[in-house]
This record gives sequence, C-alpha cells and structure tokens, in this order.
Amino acid sequence: MKIKDTKNKQTLRELIDTKDFVAHVSVDCTIFGFHNNILKVLLLKYHDLDLWSLPGGFVFTDEDLREAAARVLYERTHLKDLFLKQFHTFGRIDRTENNVHQILLENKGITVPKDHWIFQRFITVGYCSLIDFSIANTFPDAFNESCEWFEVNNLPKMAFDHDRIIETGLEYLRMNINTEVAASNLLPEKFTMKDLQCLYETILGEKFRRNNFQRKILSLNILDRLEKLYDGSANKAPYLYTFKKRFSTDSPNPISGKENK
Amino acid sequence: MKIKDTKNKQTLRELIDTKDFVAHVSVDCTIFGFHNNILKVLLLKYHDLDLWSLPGGFVFTDEDLREAAARVLYERTHLKDLFLKQFHTFGRIDRTENNVHQILLENKGITVPKDHWIFQRFITVGYCSLIDFSIANTFPDAFNESCEWFEVNNLPKMAFDHDRIIETGLEYLRMNINTEVAASNLLPEKFTMKDLQCLYETILGEKFRRNNFQRKILSLNILDRLEKLYDGSANKAPYLYTFKKRFSTDSPNPISGKENK
Repeated sequence: MKIKDTKNKQTLRELIDTKDFVAHVSVDCTIFGFHNNILKVLLLKYHDLDLWSLPGGFVFTDEDLREAAARVLYERTHLKDLFLKQFHTFGRIDRTENNVHQILLENKGITVPKDHWIFQRFITVGYCSLIDFSIANTFPDAFNESCEWFEVNNLPKMAFDHDRIIETGLEYLRMNINTEVAASNLLPEKFTMKDLQCLYETILGEKFRRNNFQRKILSLNILDRLEKLYDGSANKAPYLYTFKKRFSTDSPNPISGKENK
Repeated sequence: MKIKDTKNKQTLRELIDTKDFVAHVSVDCTIFGFHNNILKVLLLKYHDLDLWSLPGGFVFTDEDLREAAARVLYERTHLKDLFLKQFHTFGRIDRTENNVHQILLENKGITVPKDHWIFQRFITVGYCSLIDFSIANTFPDAFNESCEWFEVNNLPKMAFDHDRIIETGLEYLRMNINTEVAASNLLPEKFTMKDLQCLYETILGEKFRRNNFQRKILSLNILDRLEKLYDGSANKAPYLYTFKKRFSTDSPNPISGKENK
C-alpha cells in the first residue's frame, strides 16, 4: 500500500485552506486494539471540547479512497501495511448537521466563510483495523489535542454519528471474525487453541467452553494443526495451530479485502 | 422506505442541468434477477453506444444515501420495498476517467462546459438487490435507450468499472447467501428443500449432492421444518420448510442491512 506524503504536520489553518480534497467525501477508521484480553478503540479528543471522534480524514483529489484510509491510519499510528478493511458507508443527510467544526474553529480564532467545504454534507466511508494497542504509538491530528484508547463498551461522548460507526465496525468485526482475526497478525504464526479462544472471547464479548470452542473452530476448517508446544514438562503440552494459507493473507475476504476497487 | 418523488421522466438536458446533487457521490445497483434456475443482472444500454452500465444515479442534497439507491431501484423497476443492501464503495481515482458521458452528450447535441459536475471524479456506493426477473418490468433512464437482463457469466461491454462492481456484488451475494436468500422473498413462505437447493445452486454457480446440501443447510439452523407437502400421491411427499424469523426480515445482517446509517 502506497502512502501519500503525510500532511500530518499541517496546522488547522493549513488544513482548512486545503483546496485539493474531494468535496463531500471522508473516511473514518475504527482502529480496534487488542491486548491482554481487552478490546479497545482509538479515539481523538477535539481541542477544548469534551467531545471525541474517530480517526478520520478527507480524500485528496489524486488519491484512491483506500489510500486515504491507509494514510489516516498511518498518520495516527505511524504504522504501515496494517490490516484495513472497508465495512460500510454512512450517508444520512443529517449525519454532519451540527456545529462541532464551527465551534472548534471559533475557539481557535480561525475565520471561515459559511459556505466553506468543511461545513458541507459529508458521506463517510468506514474502514476497520485491528492491532495490538500495547505496541502502537498514537498521534492526534490538527482538529484534536489528544489520542486515547477506550474500551469498546465504555466510550466517551462521540461527535457526529461516530458512535454508530463504531457499533457497525464492531458488528462487522464480530461477523467476520474468522477471516479478520486470521488477517490481523495479532497472533504469532503458531499459536495455541487457548490463545485463539482468548482473542475470540474478547472480540465477541462472550465466554466459550473450551471443548465447544475447539470443536466449532476446527469444524470451520481454517486451521492447520502443527506440533505440540514442548515446554519441558511434557505431558500436557498443547498443540500449536496456524491459519490455513487462504486465511492468512491480508485479503481473505473478497468483499472488503480487495485493494483499490 | 420512503421514495423521493421520482425524477425518472426528466430528459438528459434536465438531468445535466440539475443543481441539487451531492458532488462526487453516486450509487450503483447490482439488481440480480433469478428465475427458472438462471441468475441475471439488470443492465442499461447507453444511447447510440455499444456500451452498458449498471442502474445508477446521483444523490440529491436532501436525500439519504440509501434513499438514493432505493429511488434508482424504483425508477428502473417501478417496484418498492425491494430487498436492498449496501455492499461496497468504489473509490479509485481512475474509475470514472473516461469520456463516455462526453461522447454521449455530444451525440445528443448537448453542450456542457468542461468543468461540469458530470465530468468530475465520482465515488460510487454499490447496492445489491435480488428479485424475480420474470415479474419485473424495467425502464431505462435519460442516459440510456434500453434495459436488459444479462446472465451473470455472459456480460456485454461495460462502462467505467461496472464489471468489477458486478463481480463484487456477486461475491457479496454468494458470501452472504444464507441471509440474503432468506431476505429476498424469492421463495414463497413455505418451500421444499429442492426449491432452496435450486436457488443456492444458481446463485453459487455449482451443483450439490442432495444429501450433502440438506445436511449442510440444516446444520446452519436457519430453517424451521413444517408439515409435508401433501399432493395426493402420499408416500414420498417432501417436507416444507420456512426461514426462522430472525432470517426472514429485510435486515438480517447487522452490517449491511440497517437502514439509513
């Protein structure tokens, strides 16, 4: 994935003065973070407001839609080639009908005409990512003063329809867990059934009985069983597993995984 | 689903002169048609060109994205409340970089400035529908001279990236066949396993052994078995089935089925 030269260092004034965005179109990323059996989502806090939003951005006129999402992901984490899937486009008339941007700009003393593109209707394309939040640094953009990881069931006050976007992103992740977990690189190449069960339980928000989980996941035929994990104590060493090849690429899902459609 | 007053009767000139579309955003519908074990897709032929496209349209400034797709579906079929799911948004820079519209307008003697919105970059949101093509009338729009159903594996020359949109729509339909077929109303409320198998085989483009199909579909736990279909000859009467309630609504899929996100 080619990443356009980041514009991350631009000021709010520079961003507002940008002329080469595609009007009416934005991207928003639900970047889910997993670590130690906790599922979080990355949010940004607006300058001087008690209001949060998803990492998002606009699409440059010379940039593919997917490139824009990858750029947003890169600008907020400085990580490239992350797992990234488009999941839904949000296009209600009233989704951006509020004055968040206006208040924000006034607070910063930035004067903008009423017909400026920032105040127009935006249709936003949601992209989903899944990373280990313990190893990711995060960086706010020009609109925001800070980045924070929030547990998905304990979110702060969200701007626009971003709470619905998170909900939809989480539903997408849960419904496609088999392919998405395989593609996420959250597990090492070889892992135990227990590792996998913990990840599934955290994302799905429910507990499974060990035998049931093992039976169900094996019946999906997405895993190859490898050697036992030999740790010296021998007897009850668990088997190691790996995802079958077709599930371990970055694009296992023909709907949302193909690049640059 | 509220349908905006259709603008279907507008001429090409009226369409081109429309000022209240959201710039850069369009919708395209892959309307799949099933009948007698044949799967087709509805296409439109451009005026005076040997080139076809999907039923599509622009989004009015006072219209939700999903309303626009429902309006397109209504304008082309005069049917309301059809099964309709968003499946993917297509945003490559070069997807509309060609002169189809320019040639078409020149052929019709319609003069349009080079910076007109029709020539700008469009990001299009794909919606999928599934209907019985034997009972649907179809109606072309201002750009097109005719509508025709084509078998999905024998398509004519397509404009823009519409062949990729069809391919992606078909992949979406196949990957979500259990929920989509249940929601499509293509089967009567009660149906035999043979009816269901025919529909699956046609959409998936492959044959199944009767016992295998029955075993697999029953293991999904999406069907309720009803009484036998009594036809007088008694002995080998097949059972009737119906979709379980949660699969027979218009919105069984929390990702793509929710209205107006």
